[in-house]
Amino acid sequence: MAKKILTISREFGSGGRTVGKRAAELLGVPYYDKELVKEVAAKTGFTERFVEQAGEDAPGKTWFSAMLLGSGLPGAMNGLSANDFLWAIQYQVIQELAEKGPCVIVGRCADWVLRDREDCLNAFIYASEEKRAQRIVRQYGQSEKRPEKRLEDKDKKRRVYYQRYTTRDWGDPENYHICLNSGVLGIEGCARLLVGLME
Amino acid sequence: MAKKILTISREFGSGGRTVGKRAAELLGVPYYDKELVKEVAAKTGFTERFVEQAGEDAPGKTWFSAMLLGSGLPGAMNGLSANDFLWAIQYQVIQELAEKGPCVIVGRCADWVLRDREDCLNAFIYASEEKRAQRIVRQYGQSEKRPEKRLEDKDKKRRVYYQRYTTRDWGDPENYHICLNSGVLGIEGCARLLVGLME
Repeated sequence: MAKKILTISREFGSGGRTVGKRAAELLGVPYYDKELVKEVAAKTGFTERFVEQAGEDAPGKTWFSAMLLGSGLPGAMNGLSANDFLWAIQYQVIQELAEKGPCVIVGRCADWVLRDREDCLNAFIYASEEKRAQRIVRQYGQSEKRPEKRLEDKDKKRRVYYQRYTTRDWGDPENYHICLNSGVLGIEGCARLLVGLME
Repeated sequence: MAKKILTISREFGSGGRTVGKRAAELLGVPYYDKELVKEVAAKTGFTERFVEQAGEDAPGKTWFSAMLLGSGLPGAMNGLSANDFLWAIQYQVIQELAEKGPCVIVGRCADWVLRDREDCLNAFIYASEEKRAQRIVRQYGQSEKRPEKRLEDKDKKRRVYYQRYTTRDWGDPENYHICLNSGVLGIEGCARLLVGLME
C-alpha cells in the first residue's frame, strides 16, 4: 500500500526535525510539529509553551501514575496529570491531521498513535553521540551542561515519555520501518531517501 | 565518500541474505557468503561445514574465553578455541576480499571487521517476529521446534558471537548506517534502496 504519512522519531541532535521539514518540502505536503502544538493549545486553553514541554515529558510522579495505568484502572481516582490529559488531546489531534491528508509528523509518538493505519511510513533518525554533540552545540550553542549530558537528559525524557504512553521501547527498530544514521547519510540524504520511499 | 562495499547484518528469517544477493546482482559486484566460507576452509583445512557453523557460533566455554579476552591476556594460556582461530582467519579473508574491490558481504561481523574503511555502507535487516516466523517455515519447512523458538535460538547465537568478537551489541542501530524492516519494505524494496545509496 502506498504511504501517505511520514512519521519521524529521532534522537536529540540527530537533525530528525530538519529531515522531516525537508522531506515535507520535497513532497509538497504539510509538516506538523509546531502546528500540532498550536492546535492542542487551542483545544485545551494551555499556552503553547506548556503544551510543547508537556508533549515530550512524562509527568514527574511517574511511579504513581504508572501504578494506576499498570493496574488497568485509569480513572479509578480523580487524578489525571496535565501530561496525561494533553496526551489524550494530542492523540486526537494527530489522528485528525492524518485524516486530512498526506503529511509529515515529527515526534509525539505519532508512529504509535497512527499504528492502525497502513499508509504510514515510520522512520527513526539517529546518529553517533559525537555527531549529535557537535550538532547541538552548533544549533543551540554551549550551555553549562556538557553536550553529552544534554543529549542523555533529553533522550531519557523522550524514552520515558514514549514508554509511558505506548508501552514500547523508544528507538527499538521493531517500532519503525526504517532507521537512518543521519551522521553518515546526511540530513539531505535521509530526506531524499524517505521521499523516494513515499513516492 | 562513495561507498563500494555493502555489509549486511540480519536477523534470522528477515531475508537479509536474499537482500544481499539481490543487491549484488543489481550492482553487478560479487556477493560473499559461501565463498567466504570456502576461502576460510581452504586456508585452514577445516571442512566448509565446520567453518560455516563455527563462523556464527561463539565457543561453548565462553565464560573462560571471555575471562581471557577480558583480561587483556589472550595467549596467556595455550588455548585458543577453534572458533577463535577461525575468527582470526576469517578476519583476514574479509579484509582481503574488501581490498579486491566492490562487493557485498553478508554476516560475519563484516561491518566491524571493515570499520576503518570509509567506503562501506553497513546495513541491518530486520522484521517483526511474525513475518520472520512465516518466512522460515516457508523457506526451511517445519521442525519440531516452534518457529519463534528457532528465531530466538539463532539470533541469540548471532548476538553472542557478535558481542564476543566486536564487544558491541548486535542489532544496535549505532553500529549501522541504515536499518531496514524487510517485512514492510520487502526484499526487493530493501535491495533497491541499498543499491540507490551505493550508487
